[in-house]
Amino acid sequence: MNFRSDNEVGAHPAVLAAVTKAFTSGSAFSYGADDWTQRVERRLRDLFDKPDLVVQPVITGTAANSLALACCTPPWGAVFCHATSHIAAEETGAPEFYTGGARLFRIDGPAGKIDPVKFAEAAAQPVYGVPHFSQPTALSITQATECGTVYGPEEVAALSTIARRHDLAVHMDGARFANALAYVGCSPAELTWKAGVDVLSFGATKNGVLAAEAVVFFKPELAKDYPYRSKRGGHMLSKMRLISSQLEAYLDNGLWLDNARHANAMARRLVAGLSALPGTQLMYPVEANEIFVVMQAHRHDALQAAGAKYHPWPSDRPGERAFRLVTAFDTDPADVDNFLSIAKAA
Amino acid sequence: MNFRSDNEVGAHPAVLAAVTKAFTSGSAFSYGADDWTQRVERRLRDLFDKPDLVVQPVITGTAANSLALACCTPPWGAVFCHATSHIAAEETGAPEFYTGGARLFRIDGPAGKIDPVKFAEAAAQPVYGVPHFSQPTALSITQATECGTVYGPEEVAALSTIARRHDLAVHMDGARFANALAYVGCSPAELTWKAGVDVLSFGATKNGVLAAEAVVFFKPELAKDYPYRSKRGGHMLSKMRLISSQLEAYLDNGLWLDNARHANAMARRLVAGLSALPGTQLMYPVEANEIFVVMQAHRHDALQAAGAKYHPWPSDRPGERAFRLVTAFDTDPADVDNFLSIAKAA
Amino acid sequence: MNFRSDNEVGAHPAVLAAVTKAFTSGSAFSYGADDWTQRVERRLRDLFDKPDLVVQPVITGTAANSLALACCTPPWGAVFCHATSHIAAEETGAPEFYTGGARLFRIDGPAGKIDPVKFAEAAAQPVYGVPHFSQPTALSITQATECGTVYGPEEVAALSTIARRHDLAVHMDGARFANALAYVGCSPAELTWKAGVDVLSFGATKNGVLAAEAVVFFKPELAKDYPYRSKRGGHMLSKMRLISSQLEAYLDNGLWLDNARHANAMARRLVAGLSALPGTQLMYPVEANEIFVVMQAHRHDALQAAGAKYHPWPSDRPGERAFRLVTAFDTDPADVDNFLSIAKAA
Amino acid sequence: MNFRSDNEVGAHPAVLAAVTKAFTSGSAFSYGADDWTQRVERRLRDLFDKPDLVVQPVITGTAANSLALACCTPPWGAVFCHATSHIAAEETGAPEFYTGGARLFRIDGPAGKIDPVKFAEAAAQPVYGVPHFSQPTALSITQATECGTVYGPEEVAALSTIARRHDLAVHMDGARFANALAYVGCSPAELTWKAGVDVLSFGATKNGVLAAEAVVFFKPELAKDYPYRSKRGGHMLSKMRLISSQLEAYLDNGLWLDNARHANAMARRLVAGLSALPGTQLMYPVEANEIFVVMQAHRHDALQAAGAKYHPWPSDRPGERAFRLVTAFDTDPADVDNFLSIAKAA
Repeated sequence: MNFRSDNEVGAHPAVLAAVTKAFTSGSAFSYGADDWTQRVERRLRDLFDKPDLVVQPVITGTAANSLALACCTPPWGAVFCHATSHIAAEETGAPEFYTGGARLFRIDGPAGKIDPVKFAEAAAQPVYGVPHFSQPTALSITQATECGTVYGPEEVAALSTIARRHDLAVHMDGARFANALAYVGCSPAELTWKAGVDVLSFGATKNGVLAAEAVVFFKPELAKDYPYRSKRGGHMLSKMRLISSQLEAYLDNGLWLDNARHANAMARRLVAGLSALPGTQLMYPVEANEIFVVMQAHRHDALQAAGAKYHPWPSDRPGERAFRLVTAFDTDPADVDNFLSIAKAA
Repeated sequence: MNFRSDNEVGAHPAVLAAVTKAFTSGSAFSYGADDWTQRVERRLRDLFDKPDLVVQPVITGTAANSLALACCTPPWGAVFCHATSHIAAEETGAPEFYTGGARLFRIDGPAGKIDPVKFAEAAAQPVYGVPHFSQPTALSITQATECGTVYGPEEVAALSTIARRHDLAVHMDGARFANALAYVGCSPAELTWKAGVDVLSFGATKNGVLAAEAVVFFKPELAKDYPYRSKRGGHMLSKMRLISSQLEAYLDNGLWLDNARHANAMARRLVAGLSALPGTQLMYPVEANEIFVVMQAHRHDALQAAGAKYHPWPSDRPGERAFRLVTAFDTDPADVDNFLSIAKAA
Repeated sequence: MNFRSDNEVGAHPAVLAAVTKAFTSGSAFSYGADDWTQRVERRLRDLFDKPDLVVQPVITGTAANSLALACCTPPWGAVFCHATSHIAAEETGAPEFYTGGARLFRIDGPAGKIDPVKFAEAAAQPVYGVPHFSQPTALSITQATECGTVYGPEEVAALSTIARRHDLAVHMDGARFANALAYVGCSPAELTWKAGVDVLSFGATKNGVLAAEAVVFFKPELAKDYPYRSKRGGHMLSKMRLISSQLEAYLDNGLWLDNARHANAMARRLVAGLSALPGTQLMYPVEANEIFVVMQAHRHDALQAAGAKYHPWPSDRPGERAFRLVTAFDTDPADVDNFLSIAKAA
Repeated sequence: MNFRSDNEVGAHPAVLAAVTKAFTSGSAFSYGADDWTQRVERRLRDLFDKPDLVVQPVITGTAANSLALACCTPPWGAVFCHATSHIAAEETGAPEFYTGGARLFRIDGPAGKIDPVKFAEAAAQPVYGVPHFSQPTALSITQATECGTVYGPEEVAALSTIARRHDLAVHMDGARFANALAYVGCSPAELTWKAGVDVLSFGATKNGVLAAEAVVFFKPELAKDYPYRSKRGGHMLSKMRLISSQLEAYLDNGLWLDNARHANAMARRLVAGLSALPGTQLMYPVEANEIFVVMQAHRHDALQAAGAKYHPWPSDRPGERAFRLVTAFDTDPADVDNFLSIAKAA
């Protein structure tokens, strides 16, 4: 009953088999000139229906986000993002490091989503071309959000339209992109470039691989300096096939969406059970694989006693106890049911 | 007959098995709090006979070098290194990036080794405490060197002694540390901290794993800020066991030294054959697994025709053609012999 | 009738005379080893009643703030400051540049002052020692604030006490420190180090000199690396006496406080007149030399027609028109009276 | 008899008068929108016969060099320069700081001048477009050199031609540009943009002003981001007329060249006398206002006893004692003659 994080689980056997095969089938060109990396790019071009997109595999989500943003914003740039976004709330200044000191401007909005009105207002400040002010150059959208909610294509498009008005690049932190897409049910293109996204951090690590992400540039010109930035960040693996072979297996036979659908389904199963419990309340709509829930202390105590693992979470209301539960590609329905029985019995 | 690089080969089955096991044996704490990472640290403490050393697994050698140097030198610092060193000749400014703009001062010396006299002279410049000058703060030694030679413990100690005189930290870029140690035959401690090394980039990627390095801090106080630097560099893997499980298997049963001994032996086997060929000359003593050789054009042509793979290399003398051959943990002796027969027959 | 900015006015004759004298009285040691710089340090030690403080003259307020903050916070640090503070709202990422990428966390509070409750809450987040989060390392207080208000010594102390609890350094952006001190009427020590301030950007540029600021380190150990940071920022003037001679004249015979008292008095004179006008409202209490005022359009039009100069200012309430008026060391009372007559007559 | 540095002398009365006037003639627009700054730009456009050049006044030479280079080179760029150049030998990493971590590649050559053959060889390395290597993006030429020699226009052109071949920007560090120009006797245009220079650090500080430099962009497109870089470096003075008024007076009536001619003449006068002394040898041809001279110990002792001031200088030959003498715009011929008599009498 580990619902602590989709970071803590293992990897899908198909992904492990692909990695093993990649490293036992002879030599390969180094630094991303290998066949796996080439194939992953072709695969993502097909998947996103965008024949000129550029793919750069990378080992962590923080690196993906920071490198992607650095390709969009100069040191004197400013990036709009939600106050809860991973780049603003965590990552220890990684975007600042990779951009050479750009600023993050935090925009609020309910349930982890950027409020378009507040964003429009912030982006319309008369600072453009005035050297006293950091120059707005990018918008970063988290999909699924850090509150477990998902932007629909039209919501992404609404934000992108505002961004476009001010010539801002649009970045999507897709650490849980698969979970978001599985929820929305549209095509990958519709949720990204067709809705105005210029560059995507395409996450896989939290969804059944070992450690693999890709920066997907829908605007190829943004990718121009990526290799230099990646190299000096220490992110150009000599044996890049380590990442690419994972991504290939991840995309094969729709594994990535199957994994995400399972994780989402397990979250819904948890929600269904939790909603039936008196005194239990969801903090946000559960649309992907994260659940933020207010739960009575006696239920929590019983779950802890039974060895269930999940994180406490800050709650705004005094006296209330909140928690985060995360499901994953390999969450066992029996664990979910067991969890719910214990909570119910308490 | 691929002698192009030890970067292009695959991984040892034991390492692959370890990775697979690590990702199919349930959940693990994230961000390096997992058991594999803890065990690797203990293992390296034993191996280096230094119970307080600190180990930080990392995905590339460039990241290992840059993060290690950043822990030793402020933005206004200066790092002495050989002109051919990887940090100075390649890496695209990664050390500058991670240190916040420190300077590299290139010291010459034959066969890739820093000349102690030149280093002593450079380090003795009267710049200390004078704010007009970058402040010398570190020495970086490459082991094995980029010319395929190896520093003996007394050579390392000679450089460290000079460094110590000026309070410089001593870093060792050990991308091919195993090959160097296998050549020297002393203990890991003797080649590192007992010879004055403060921090080691302990390389494994080139010696039979997928992608794994470790920054080994012999002075624990240098490691204090590493986690912040690593995180903002995008190098704190959520599933750190990907690296640690490789390192554990690499250290198990002496696999690391066996692999290096094999690669070195294959290099010697090549050298034995090449030395017998008229018109063929080694550019440097071959002590690890890299061979830099001047070879007649007709031999090269014959080898190319037969599909042998290796890199041309710059030669200082006009008209001469030089090449680099690299052996690896899995180099087949039959390939070596085949290569030599073709070269001989030409 | 120029009330646009205290940046646009000239310099006091005594300051100009001092500069001229400094540059016509023979040669002087370069890079701050000159007599003027030494004397200014002694003078400020006396003035602040702190014999061990360290003074570093610098040419702009942005440089003073950024260098001061860089001496307090590592690249993975975080600085708390008011949302309207100059470092957060302007300066184009200068603090991020000099710190190597630290983060600014904006705290709200009425009239440009940091709300101690909000600050205490923000500073108490459980992020210390956790490498996923920027580490709080400093608090920056603006004195006088960007809204023209002034923190009393006890208000500074309240914030410093919270900062101290979390081991944060306390920086004061004193671009208008003289105006603040003139308002409060306490001693320089009481408003700074005795209230917990560790480092002060001591501004003079806006108060009657040509261009001169000083970073005043009340904690001498924070100044240790300043010379290196200043040098690589291009801020170590070879003829540092250009700045120091201004500062010396500025401090001589209380000129600095006289100038500030005059500017403040002119602001109060404006306020007295404006308050009597129907439909005119101050946005914040006027405590230093900046006035933010809501004024009817017809008055504004009449003033514009008469050639009065001042900036429009954003107002929160729709339909309302707001403006900023700034007085200076040389503001002519006749200009103030003229301005008020026109506004009244309109 | 102070020949220590042209940094230690005072300022010309005309420059001081101009500054005083600028600060007593009413208010002025801030941040470089003032009339002085506009006039200086027009003046330099005329002087350099280049109607579209862009001028940015700045307070120090280190800032001028670093900001200029940052406009030419990305963080992964490399700058070729002479080993003795100020940017490489001093400045404490300022170019690295402003460029975000670019590398300096030191090229040798006699008497402080870059050897075109060595430069051509270095610039022709096959690193372009290969992300493992810092990308050559600029050449920096020091004029006059740090050895007191001067490049003729054809020498500048020879280097620029090589630079152009590889699409490198050409920067000239003209801290002593006036002295160089006075020596060569050609037009400012011929020694700069007509010889291929793209951006010039136009120095005045060492030649009779208080503290004033200008970055002169002959390629206006390079200046595009200068204001943002300057602002975040803390170099956008609110009262920019402090610098511009100096520059205007400096350019008025040919004061700048008169000053330089005087300094150069005083250097030649020293050389004439020194050359006649047995055991005295110039280390380099004296072409501007710096003299590097090997002198017998007894002469040095006599001069020291008489209070003459100048710096010892490192000499390559053991046993030899070398010294640097610098003349300035206000060097008194009587001081020169006195110096020579003492040296002769010794």
